[in-house]
Formats: sequence, structure tokens, C-alpha cells
Amino acid sequence: MKPDAFRLERASYPLSVIVPTRFRDLDTLGHLNNVALGSFYEEGRAGLNRAAFPLEMRHESGLRMLIADVHIAYLAEAHYPGDIEVAAGVGHIGRSSYTIALALFQNGACVGTCETVLVVTDQTGAVEIPPVQRAALEGLKLKGR
Amino acid sequence: MKPDAFRLERASYPLSVIVPTRFRDLDTLGHLNNVALGSFYEEGRAGLNRAAFPLEMRHESGLRMLIADVHIAYLAEAHYPGDIEVAAGVGHIGRSSYTIALALFQNGACVGTCETVLVVTDQTGAVEIPPVQRAALEGLKLKGR
Amino acid sequence: MKPDAFRLERASYPLSVIVPTRFRDLDTLGHLNNVALGSFYEEGRAGLNRAAFPLEMRHESGLRMLIADVHIAYLAEAHYPGDIEVAAGVGHIGRSSYTIALALFQNGACVGTCETVLVVTDQTGAVEIPPVQRAALEGLKLKGR
Amino acid sequence: MKPDAFRLERASYPLSVIVPTRFRDLDTLGHLNNVALGSFYEEGRAGLNRAAFPLEMRHESGLRMLIADVHIAYLAEAHYPGDIEVAAGVGHIGRSSYTIALALFQNGACVGTCETVLVVTDQTGAVEIPPVQRAALEGLKLKGR
Repeated sequence: MKPDAFRLERASYPLSVIVPTRFRDLDTLGHLNNVALGSFYEEGRAGLNRAAFPLEMRHESGLRMLIADVHIAYLAEAHYPGDIEVAAGVGHIGRSSYTIALALFQNGACVGTCETVLVVTDQTGAVEIPPVQRAALEGLKLKGR
Repeated sequence: MKPDAFRLERASYPLSVIVPTRFRDLDTLGHLNNVALGSFYEEGRAGLNRAAFPLEMRHESGLRMLIADVHIAYLAEAHYPGDIEVAAGVGHIGRSSYTIALALFQNGACVGTCETVLVVTDQTGAVEIPPVQRAALEGLKLKGR
Repeated sequence: MKPDAFRLERASYPLSVIVPTRFRDLDTLGHLNNVALGSFYEEGRAGLNRAAFPLEMRHESGLRMLIADVHIAYLAEAHYPGDIEVAAGVGHIGRSSYTIALALFQNGACVGTCETVLVVTDQTGAVEIPPVQRAALEGLKLKGR
Repeated sequence: MKPDAFRLERASYPLSVIVPTRFRDLDTLGHLNNVALGSFYEEGRAGLNRAAFPLEMRHESGLRMLIADVHIAYLAEAHYPGDIEVAAGVGHIGRSSYTIALALFQNGACVGTCETVLVVTDQTGAVEIPPVQRAALEGLKLKGR
């Protein structure tokens, strides 16, 4: 299940964050461990979610964004030491759920992609995405598809 | 993308390993962190791979099983302290790749499923799965589908 | 700074918990990573603290046990796959602080020891250890010193 | 066991590296986890060791620097998101062992210190630190003590 070509382009993503690799991310093969790479995608999601759902708004509303589904493609081995650029954008936006599309770049090459489906909830379960947050997510959509 | 019903049944999987949760698996919400759960699936894959590709065989042949694709469904929150049973079986077997299907059970409930596509490689790239390993993978297939 | 001989004896510790190693605990040298070993000691501390400071008591009182100091001796390399037994007991008990002494055993050999100083606090800062908890800590003291 | 005052000063350390915190470093209390902080010190050690023992030199000589002892003082809670500056310098240099002194700074405050004793080994066990590496370690000594 190869990712679409535009998903491998840095320019497709409105947001990014630089995350330096750590020695603890390596495994016995000397490459960045598959599970450890999950932590890089998590930084990309956290940054996008802070942009669309500010922390104060979450504390007041009790809204939480729960991860329902994660799909990662491993495209090339990533190395330590060195930085990884985690690029992020919004894919599909539904009634109470939305998709964050992510990609990892090292030395200009895309080493992996990730799609994450999140559900917006409060104590009662899934709730409709509030209009302000929906507009913020719309403003962070992937480009070029 | 809901997993098939038989994937939520413990009896569908020929192998399993008990992995106690650790405090370090938690995140700020007090549940097992999404990335940390990746480490549980990794234990299930490692056990299955040791059964089908014994370590001595790998050292002699130089074969490695590289992860190409991981797809995780988060079905329920998992808790600490307590054990997680990681169940594993083989799905599709191709020429040089195969799929490991996994599920996490806590207190009898399926809290998540994972499908992982692995590619068998040597220094030259992807290679055909050797007959002995293919037979071993066949013997570890998921049941009941 | 070699640990005292009695600290290498399993019988010196009143509590223990079995923690299986995980593939993610390894580093590029193929041994359990030094930082990852910290997670094993954490499980020993968590078990001892649950015994002396039950979770409900903490929620009601707002008491927290904050780590002030950790001193680890690495005595031998530890391996995956396999279990580690984390043994724990209480060392010195002060007015508001106490010491947890820990040791890791694999295949009968002590592969490391740890001393942790914890301070009991509430929102105002360090507080005296309550009598019930002090008695519980006294009952979990290291033996044979 | 309070660290010496000069150990809390950024200017005492000849080397430093910026390590951004990650969501995965947090624990249920919402602060950077004690074990996760070990990964920050590890980055400081890795940078210093790459400066004094270049990777090619290690591959040719088979020398490894094994950690024998780690002593961490937790001085203040550290927060996410945000960077941590990991400062490093060499303390005592013995025949086959040496000490790396480290400190973590966040927003200008020292949030923790660490002393690590390492032993230089080859396949036969501990060996004398080679003259070139000894000179490199001397050049990276802590200042101001």
C-alpha cells in the first residue's frame, strides 16, 4: 500500500517541526527503531493539535482527541545522529473525526508516512467538531492533492 | 476501518505472549500511550519471527525481516498496572513478504489490533522466502477466517 | 563505588516483581540499554510505593512521592529475551524522605543495583511521612545489613 | 547529596546539545518522567564520547566505553513542550575510567545533574585510556572547580 506521490513532497504539508534523533531511538540493527519512529509522528500530531485545539480550550471544554487508527509506511531506514523533520497536514474532516497526514524527512528524503484518524470526544463520547476548530483544521489541510 | 470480527477473538491466534504493562508506558492522560502500545505489538512480532526464522538461521543466512507497513486500530483504553496478552498469527504470505496479524487483550477484552507487512531481505534487497521458513509461517496462520 | 555485598543477595529484599525484557529495551550493542534499565527500577519502586502508599490514600491526601536522587551501579550486561526480577526494600527512613534500595537479577545473577531517595510532598512542599505510611515502610525494610 | 554550586552553572561545561522534549517523555503527573530524563543525559554523553573517541577509532580499535555508575540529582520539574540544554564536561580521569559530569537546563534553570563513570574496554576487559583519547578528555574538562 504505497503512499500517494504528493505525500512524499515536503511542500504538501502546511506544518513541520524538527525533532533530533536520540541514541535511545536506535535498535540492535543500528537504525531508528520502528516503534521509536512512532514518537516522531506523535510530535507532529501534538503540534498540529495544539494549533487547532489550544490547550486552554481543551481544559475548559473537556474535549479530547483520541486516536482511533494509525497507518505507517516505512520507506527508508533513518539514522542517528541527525535531525528528522516531521511534516503534518490535515486530510479528511468528518463530523466528529479527522485525519492527520504526516511524513518524516531526513536529509531531504521522505523516510516514512503516517495517517492517523482521531475522534473528538467529551465525557459522553464522540462529539461534533466545534466550528472554530473545524475552521482551524480546514486551514491546515494538505496541499496539492 | 474496523477490524474483522474474528480478529477480536483470542482463539484466532496460534501464538501469544504475556507482556506486563510498565509505568513508563503511561502518558499524561493516565492510559497506555499510543506509541508505547507499539512496543507490545513488537513483542508479538519478535516471538513469531523467532519461531519461523530462528536466530542462528538469520546469522548464517544474513536474512532480515524489515517492516514495510504497520496498521493499528485502537479499540479501547488499556490500563496500568496489569498484563497485556499479545496474540499473533500469520496472514497473507507472498513471494518475499508476509503479514503478521496481532491483537492485544487486557482482562479478556480486545483493546487493539495491528497488521504488519514484513519483507525478507539480504544485502541485495528483497529475496524469496526460503521453503523452510515458508512452511513455518504456514503453520502459524490465523484461524477461523 | 561498589554496592555492599548484602545488596547483591536476593534474600535481602522483602519485595520483588518479574519484568520481562522487551526488544525496545535493547540498544545498538545488543544489550539492555542503560536508560531502559531505569524503567525496570521504576517498576520496583512503583510496586513498593503502592504497598506503602495505597492509591486511594494518595488521591485523598494529595501526597506525592517525588524522586530527589537516583544512584545506579551497572554490574553486568543484561540480555533479551528473558525476564528480570526487580527486588526492592526500604533503606533509610527520615522525617519526610526515605530510600528505596533495588536490585536487578537475571538468571540468578545480580546485574545492577539502585538507590533512590524520595521526598513526600503535598502542595505546600515536603511534609512529614504520616504514621501509617511510616509503619508500612518500616515493615518493608531491607534485611541482613 | 546536593551537587556542588559550580555544577549548576552553565559556564562550567565545555560542551552542550539542545534536545527538544517529546510528548512521550511525559508521565501521568504531566512532568518529564524520571526515566525519560535519562535519555537526555545519554545524548550529552554520546556527544562528548563522539568528540573524544571518534566512531572510526572505535571501529578500528574495538574499544567500548561501558557505563559503570550513574548518579542523578533531580532538582526541579521539567516541562513539555520546550527544549532542554544538556551540558557536559569531563570530571575525574583515571587509568581506564573517566567521569562525565552533566547538567540539564530549561529556561535558564538547572533542573538536574548527573555524574557517570565509564570504563574503557576491549574484548579482554578494562584497558588503559589511549594517549590521544586521554588528551581529548583533558581538553573537555569541567571549568571553575
